[in-house]
Amino acid sequence: MKKTRKIIIDTDPGIDDAVAIAAALFDESLDIKLFTTVGGNVSVDKVTKNLLKLLAFWNKDVPVAIGSGRPLLREAIDASEIHGSTGMDGYDFATSKYELLTKNHAVIEMYKVLMDSKEKTTIVAIGPLTNIALLLRMYPECVERIEELVLMGGSLARGNTGVLSEFNIAADPEAAKIVFESNLTLTMVGLDVGEKALILAEDCQKLKKMNKTGDMINQLFNSYGSGNMEVGLHMYDGCAIAYLLAPEMFDVRETYVAIETQGALTAGATLVDLNGYLGRKANCRVCVDLDSVQFKQWFFDAIGKCD
Amino acid sequence: MKKTRKIIIDTDPGIDDAVAIAAALFDESLDIKLFTTVGGNVSVDKVTKNLLKLLAFWNKDVPVAIGSGRPLLREAIDASEIHGSTGMDGYDFATSKYELLTKNHAVIEMYKVLMDSKEKTTIVAIGPLTNIALLLRMYPECVERIEELVLMGGSLARGNTGVLSEFNIAADPEAAKIVFESNLTLTMVGLDVGEKALILAEDCQKLKKMNKTGDMINQLFNSYGSGNMEVGLHMYDGCAIAYLLAPEMFDVRETYVAIETQGALTAGATLVDLNGYLGRKANCRVCVDLDSVQFKQWFFDAIGKCD
Amino acid sequence: MKKTRKIIIDTDPGIDDAVAIAAALFDESLDIKLFTTVGGNVSVDKVTKNLLKLLAFWNKDVPVAIGSGRPLLREAIDASEIHGSTGMDGYDFATSKYELLTKNHAVIEMYKVLMDSKEKTTIVAIGPLTNIALLLRMYPECVERIEELVLMGGSLARGNTGVLSEFNIAADPEAAKIVFESNLTLTMVGLDVGEKALILAEDCQKLKKMNKTGDMINQLFNSYGSGNMEVGLHMYDGCAIAYLLAPEMFDVRETYVAIETQGALTAGATLVDLNGYLGRKANCRVCVDLDSVQFKQWFFDAIGKCD
Amino acid sequence: MKKTRKIIIDTDPGIDDAVAIAAALFDESLDIKLFTTVGGNVSVDKVTKNLLKLLAFWNKDVPVAIGSGRPLLREAIDASEIHGSTGMDGYDFATSKYELLTKNHAVIEMYKVLMDSKEKTTIVAIGPLTNIALLLRMYPECVERIEELVLMGGSLARGNTGVLSEFNIAADPEAAKIVFESNLTLTMVGLDVGEKALILAEDCQKLKKMNKTGDMINQLFNSYGSGNMEVGLHMYDGCAIAYLLAPEMFDVRETYVAIETQGALTAGATLVDLNGYLGRKANCRVCVDLDSVQFKQWFFDAIGKCD
Repeated sequence: MKKTRKIIIDTDPGIDDAVAIAAALFDESLDIKLFTTVGGNVSVDKVTKNLLKLLAFWNKDVPVAIGSGRPLLREAIDASEIHGSTGMDGYDFATSKYELLTKNHAVIEMYKVLMDSKEKTTIVAIGPLTNIALLLRMYPECVERIEELVLMGGSLARGNTGVLSEFNIAADPEAAKIVFESNLTLTMVGLDVGEKALILAEDCQKLKKMNKTGDMINQLFNSYGSGNMEVGLHMYDGCAIAYLLAPEMFDVRETYVAIETQGALTAGATLVDLNGYLGRKANCRVCVDLDSVQFKQWFFDAIGKCD
Repeated sequence: MKKTRKIIIDTDPGIDDAVAIAAALFDESLDIKLFTTVGGNVSVDKVTKNLLKLLAFWNKDVPVAIGSGRPLLREAIDASEIHGSTGMDGYDFATSKYELLTKNHAVIEMYKVLMDSKEKTTIVAIGPLTNIALLLRMYPECVERIEELVLMGGSLARGNTGVLSEFNIAADPEAAKIVFESNLTLTMVGLDVGEKALILAEDCQKLKKMNKTGDMINQLFNSYGSGNMEVGLHMYDGCAIAYLLAPEMFDVRETYVAIETQGALTAGATLVDLNGYLGRKANCRVCVDLDSVQFKQWFFDAIGKCD
Repeated sequence: MKKTRKIIIDTDPGIDDAVAIAAALFDESLDIKLFTTVGGNVSVDKVTKNLLKLLAFWNKDVPVAIGSGRPLLREAIDASEIHGSTGMDGYDFATSKYELLTKNHAVIEMYKVLMDSKEKTTIVAIGPLTNIALLLRMYPECVERIEELVLMGGSLARGNTGVLSEFNIAADPEAAKIVFESNLTLTMVGLDVGEKALILAEDCQKLKKMNKTGDMINQLFNSYGSGNMEVGLHMYDGCAIAYLLAPEMFDVRETYVAIETQGALTAGATLVDLNGYLGRKANCRVCVDLDSVQFKQWFFDAIGKCD
Repeated sequence: MKKTRKIIIDTDPGIDDAVAIAAALFDESLDIKLFTTVGGNVSVDKVTKNLLKLLAFWNKDVPVAIGSGRPLLREAIDASEIHGSTGMDGYDFATSKYELLTKNHAVIEMYKVLMDSKEKTTIVAIGPLTNIALLLRMYPECVERIEELVLMGGSLARGNTGVLSEFNIAADPEAAKIVFESNLTLTMVGLDVGEKALILAEDCQKLKKMNKTGDMINQLFNSYGSGNMEVGLHMYDGCAIAYLLAPEMFDVRETYVAIETQGALTAGATLVDLNGYLGRKANCRVCVDLDSVQFKQWFFDAIGKCD
């Protein structure tokens, strides 16, 4: 029998997150102990509501804990014009499963899951890293209980929020700095691979006929931005789950990654030091490339497993 | 009957803190609901042990919760060469009262006290502001439950850790920035008044004959640094309690205070904008002057009330 | 016979500068070889025009070279609301002496004076340090030809342009950094002494009866800001000349001074490291105190020597 | 008859520069009025000596003016371990032509050429931008006399000196900031095209048989670093001249480019804002791609024209 991996998913859904969550929920090798939410693409209230809708849609009973509604130091970046007013417009979801909500803060619930489990737990973080940074500062002993932190964020080079900065890192650079300097076993799944995880309009045609989930995702995709489907949609968050389940599709390098927090224009840049300019030992596994063809196959297989 | 004020004291004892704690514990108008500890002068383990020793010395039963052992972003500044190896050398304390320790993190215990109390609670923070910053980010709703935050830290001008920065702020400038930008009712008791709260060698002669507490404090003072008693000791932390109990001794200005977190040499500087250069509305009451004579009288009265 | 000291005055007149220039021009011990102008209080064109008016007023033939019109990196700070539209309003000067203008840039003329003189030359800089920084970068060999650089700027503590920054340094912090790190024999005459060099309304009554210069200065003073004469005027720039001619009035410390160029709120702060926090060897003589009574006497004596 | 273009070349030779200089000197359409030198790869003395050796080698009489030996604010980056002790090891050059040296600073000579010419002059800058920044600050009126500034420096993404910074910009970021904010007609020829301008070991075989220049360049190439010829050499500086002479080989975008000067780890990064994140109007033409095949043909043609 296949061994399952205990995971916590820290997320800010978000259309892109919906795919990642679907893939994770319906894979037998993953045992999702907890969802935590974080303000990011839109407010933490909206993303929590989105998450509850998704869980109700799939009728899945995983506890949900609400986390940080704002970055550690900086003002929030508003990305609602991209993601729509709810952050997950385009599908008419039924009622949310509010009974899943815990009364404790996400950080407390993560701490409990980590400490109460016999085995170590993996955290998949696909939003800004505020909750993880708070966890590390409140409970530094957690580092020993985390199998791996797989995060969607960062870039080897150019960004998608600033010229050289990616959204999840730029949204809370200080949190990212705390995480990258924490001695966690860390895997960065950034823009470089996300940009190769492309779903096209023609793929949507296929999606909508697959199953209930495929139909829902297709509708979300079609409402995402105006005309974006012409160039396709990047499954950034989906890549983080793909890495967990099919790491062989990724080209990975162990290297030192620093986070710029001081730059006037570059705060949130991830300095992936493949050439050793900074002279520091590796603190991260960085996904530098992804096999696009394999990814698309994985994507359809993953959605195919869903209801 | 005099109305009591509910307070939480966040501290890193420290000799200087011992005086502040004594004054607070034995004043009838204050009802200390909780002590929380924070790494600062020395490690959080040492300061917690010091606090427990003090509570055992006075046989006082106030709950103690251990807080953050390190600053939010930066490495800790080590001040142990000033404060001795324990941070409170010079007196042979008996056993600590470990039964006072709560099992929860300081932030969780603060949150409980704040939310469970009918009236608002005042926080007195006489160490780096890491715990308070974590509280504000974990539980932003607390702002409404805090009557006032009185903090020992900052300076109108020159510093005692960097040229323009005071220890408690410089130890965790990002935490200070979070606190000063939090919309709390905030009072800053900084170096400018602390430097006027001077206890001289001759005062120590008087102290040691007053009572058990005076004798203990005298012994702590005499072990503090080498030769410091020649110039006297500044009761920085004591001033925060003095402000609570006898605010009329202080000259206070409402003004805007900003925290520098970006400077190469000035991180941790408090910009007390009395002249309005920054064009922002007041966020703080700043103690700009103290009547030295009145303070000394207050100090002896306060110690006189102790066992 | 008294030995004269060769000097170059780099200035941005400015009422305050007018006093300094008067004191320097009429003192026999100083041999002014060159005036250079720099944008500062107002534009370099206006300050140059002001300087030429002053020289015409006194009928003095010292060459004038126009220098930098803007800071090295930053946008200029506009101080014209303090200094009036010309920077030297309030007296009806006659025509300027345009024939004094050299055709070369201030930096080139300074270089020539420095290299062509048998003895070393002292530079007195009473505006932003842009010209001096350009000189040091264009002609590093000049360092050996400069007897001393006496500059008006900086502060031990609080500022007059930002909370912790003085105008001349804050106007071009990068230039100041170049100057302070240049290994020049450097004397800083900053706000701390300037604030003790106070001329009151009653002093103006005396001034206007002294001589032509006193009358002119009195008129300038009375137009300076609105109501400023109630609290008096600080002879900041005058202090730099006073230091040259009567250094015994000043309390001076040799220490390390760093310039903050990176702070979000503190760029232009001078970190006068009297306590050795930065662990660097002295690079500057800093005037930390001034005898106010002696200064006033010196001031009247200096004006008394003028036409 | 073909119209010639008047140019000034500001350089820090350097093997890579030698190719650029050869291509420029022997092209009939360029009229080189002045060479200026700048400290960069190695000291300004060494690079000036290298330049004079090259001019003697080709027996070309173009005036040479020595420029800045160090960056505006920062300490110099030492790159001598890459470029050899002279910065141009590997060929046994004959005596230098010291009679070409002007007595004035590079900035003064540039100013004269710019102001004395009837037509505007193009500047090609293939080292750090210190001289150009000093020129712009000393003589802002020059902006009107510069046809175009073509600079080798910067990158759209990753760097060759820091993770996100290219050598010529990182060597003097403040100078670069001055240049990019100067309103000059500016063309950036950076790493992105330089990396496509690759000369391989097999090309060297061809080079050495072409002519005296080819033989010399082949010998320089073979001494450049250890084993570098296995992967080939990038003609970064050569690209700047190639752009002047054959712009059709380049894919160019008009866009806004900002220079990071504040980052702890990213100072010297060029933010090429192709997506408009910074919301500023274009200040630069950026070479984003180069046709490698055309470039190699151009390279051999250019060397073929030399002696």
